[in-house]
Amino acid sequence: MPEFLRLSPPAEAIRRWLEAFPEPAPVSQEEVSTESALGRVLAHPVSAPHALPSFPRANVDGYAVRAEDTFGATASLPAYLRLAGEVPMGGSPSGGVGVGQAYLVHTGGMIPEGSNAVVMLEDTQALAQSEIEVYRPAAPGHNVIRAGEDVEKGEPLLEAGTRLRPQEIGGLLALGLTTIKVFARPRVGILSTGDEIVPPGVDPAPGQVRDINSYTLSGVVTRAGGTPHVYGIFPDLKPALEDAARRAHAESDLVVITAGSSASSRDMTADVMAGLGEPGVMVHGLAIKPGKPTILGVAGKVPLVGLPGNPVSALVVAMLTVAPAVARLAGAKLEAPAGRIRAKLTANVPSESGRDDYVPVRLEATPEGWAAEPVFGKSNLIFSLVRADGLIHIPANATGLPSGAVVDVEPF
Amino acid sequence: MPEFLRLSPPAEAIRRWLEAFPEPAPVSQEEVSTESALGRVLAHPVSAPHALPSFPRANVDGYAVRAEDTFGATASLPAYLRLAGEVPMGGSPSGGVGVGQAYLVHTGGMIPEGSNAVVMLEDTQALAQSEIEVYRPAAPGHNVIRAGEDVEKGEPLLEAGTRLRPQEIGGLLALGLTTIKVFARPRVGILSTGDEIVPPGVDPAPGQVRDINSYTLSGVVTRAGGTPHVYGIFPDLKPALEDAARRAHAESDLVVITAGSSASSRDMTADVMAGLGEPGVMVHGLAIKPGKPTILGVAGKVPLVGLPGNPVSALVVAMLTVAPAVARLAGAKLEAPAGRIRAKLTANVPSESGRDDYVPVRLEATPEGWAAEPVFGKSNLIFSLVRADGLIHIPANATGLPSGAVVDVEPF
Repeated sequence: MPEFLRLSPPAEAIRRWLEAFPEPAPVSQEEVSTESALGRVLAHPVSAPHALPSFPRANVDGYAVRAEDTFGATASLPAYLRLAGEVPMGGSPSGGVGVGQAYLVHTGGMIPEGSNAVVMLEDTQALAQSEIEVYRPAAPGHNVIRAGEDVEKGEPLLEAGTRLRPQEIGGLLALGLTTIKVFARPRVGILSTGDEIVPPGVDPAPGQVRDINSYTLSGVVTRAGGTPHVYGIFPDLKPALEDAARRAHAESDLVVITAGSSASSRDMTADVMAGLGEPGVMVHGLAIKPGKPTILGVAGKVPLVGLPGNPVSALVVAMLTVAPAVARLAGAKLEAPAGRIRAKLTANVPSESGRDDYVPVRLEATPEGWAAEPVFGKSNLIFSLVRADGLIHIPANATGLPSGAVVDVEPF
Repeated sequence: MPEFLRLSPPAEAIRRWLEAFPEPAPVSQEEVSTESALGRVLAHPVSAPHALPSFPRANVDGYAVRAEDTFGATASLPAYLRLAGEVPMGGSPSGGVGVGQAYLVHTGGMIPEGSNAVVMLEDTQALAQSEIEVYRPAAPGHNVIRAGEDVEKGEPLLEAGTRLRPQEIGGLLALGLTTIKVFARPRVGILSTGDEIVPPGVDPAPGQVRDINSYTLSGVVTRAGGTPHVYGIFPDLKPALEDAARRAHAESDLVVITAGSSASSRDMTADVMAGLGEPGVMVHGLAIKPGKPTILGVAGKVPLVGLPGNPVSALVVAMLTVAPAVARLAGAKLEAPAGRIRAKLTANVPSESGRDDYVPVRLEATPEGWAAEPVFGKSNLIFSLVRADGLIHIPANATGLPSGAVVDVEPF
């Protein structure tokens, strides 16, 4: 596949690539206990096996009554009701509420047959001989949670593809659904190339540097809900990289290769990716800084990402490409929008028109709100990202931002 | 300890409570591989054991030169330099760059002694007989990443208490720090009370409901970096709860009790918390909706939280109290600010002055940006939070928000 160097607008190119993934999510499913499923993606829709609550409940401490028996009641002209019993917490009332009767009930307790409202204790007075005075009228349904008020039996509750938060876990368990099927975490194969790269445990000789990208990318994959598999470091020799890429392609749901930083090494990455299968390389070069030499493709069922070797470029572009790809492969429906932090720029930030720029910033609290201080640094300098709290995006149609501009910071 | 029902302003009360925690973080430390430390909290400061990069590197593909040899070079009047060699990737140059000499070097390669700039290939032309033409002058340092440009040897890099993101993992490994000490995850004991509560695996009899809170709270604890330990469900009998709370207090870094929902059960929770040790209950009642019956305390070294039994109240208040408490016990320095989503309210939201309100909203994309639709529902209804994407906060000095107001949504 010949290399083409027309740079693609990043948002459009990444969207097109994500849409080219095979549907439905190719990852397998596994049954897990609901308790342990936080952050996992539900593989099937869930409807309510029964109503919730399954019985009408008091929403306050008070007396279950027939609302009509309290109509017109005031402090000076109370309604008088006969106390027919007390509802035990966790049990059923021993009888119903007849005309002129009341049952003592606690918050969360079942209200008896015949009653349709609860008057609060504060609006009543207990008299001798099992009689109570009621000082306020209650409308039907007042202080009652009716059966099915949260969910009705059979109501569709969760779609397949829902990422489970604490409230979904609680809701599933409230319905007795103690096990569920979720999509398996996508397996992401990560390969680094470069004759100069050595593993972190090795003392680098002069001219050598330790691998950073395998581990920052693993972090991005883990955060997005995938399982990273680090294949290691490969020299800038096509056969070696080809072998490893073929193996990773066979074993993974997504393959990410960080290129050596020289131009020839980047070309080799594109060649190897193109050789893995159809449709092959879809995007070679994004109009983005950092991250121009990014390669996006699909080979058979497996999406491919080629990232620049510079650690800052690799991490920023991975957040824009690998993270949404993992979420999509995990079966997650479009995710909720990510929060941003509004801040005021403390310095001018130049950028070129026609290119999307992502600039790391450090946030400082000021009496007027957050200030965003650009962290400038060549894209080889991983500690420029350590010093930063998030990124600002300067769109392609802008030529930089002035000091004092209000920006939306995407936190890391 | 007598109950006092003066409601505390929540932000102030929660801050005062967090500041009453024993210092420094009482949790223990453990040594882990840096690779596996994503999201953990560093237990010691880190300084650079060596400079990064450890040698001066080319930032482009080109020729390493003495900048002064290129001064005045133009396309019509090029500088002529003698090609003295090529720097192998991952190795050292075989010699230095003398006057009038150049070394071919690839991006990331070490530049030879004597050179102080790199001219890009595009600005040169290779001639026969190991000579090159240079068409543009390079200033000293041009296209060079100097040794120590990312970090200098001995430079303080990370403070104890840093929560490790992908870039910190990468930075530590770039320096060869393959193991680090992190704070242990705080252990959080979770107790539920209520005669009506049964475990999720049990078919509830009439009047019984399944436990939700133990599991939504476990989710909040896990997300905040702690390890939840569910102690189970206890009847509304003081001795039973007392025993369990004492055990949880001895075994945990934080104890959370969700009260049964009746008033007597809530009082019992406060009594039990007060009996666990000094200073005991600090806050009983927050001016907040949902979540008014919240109890905050400290017993010896262990912070205590008493949450309302209603699942929505319990989850919302846990996000405001348990989550920052876990982060603090985990040894994390003040965390980066959380992102918010700016949206337009689609309906009026009433609130009472003098009380902080948290209202769940669902986000809908519109051509004008995000719309936030309030999800109203009694605080027993867990599925009202399942239908929501985040919370809006109405401060105590406001009396509701009108439809069309711009709000900041805190995503779940």
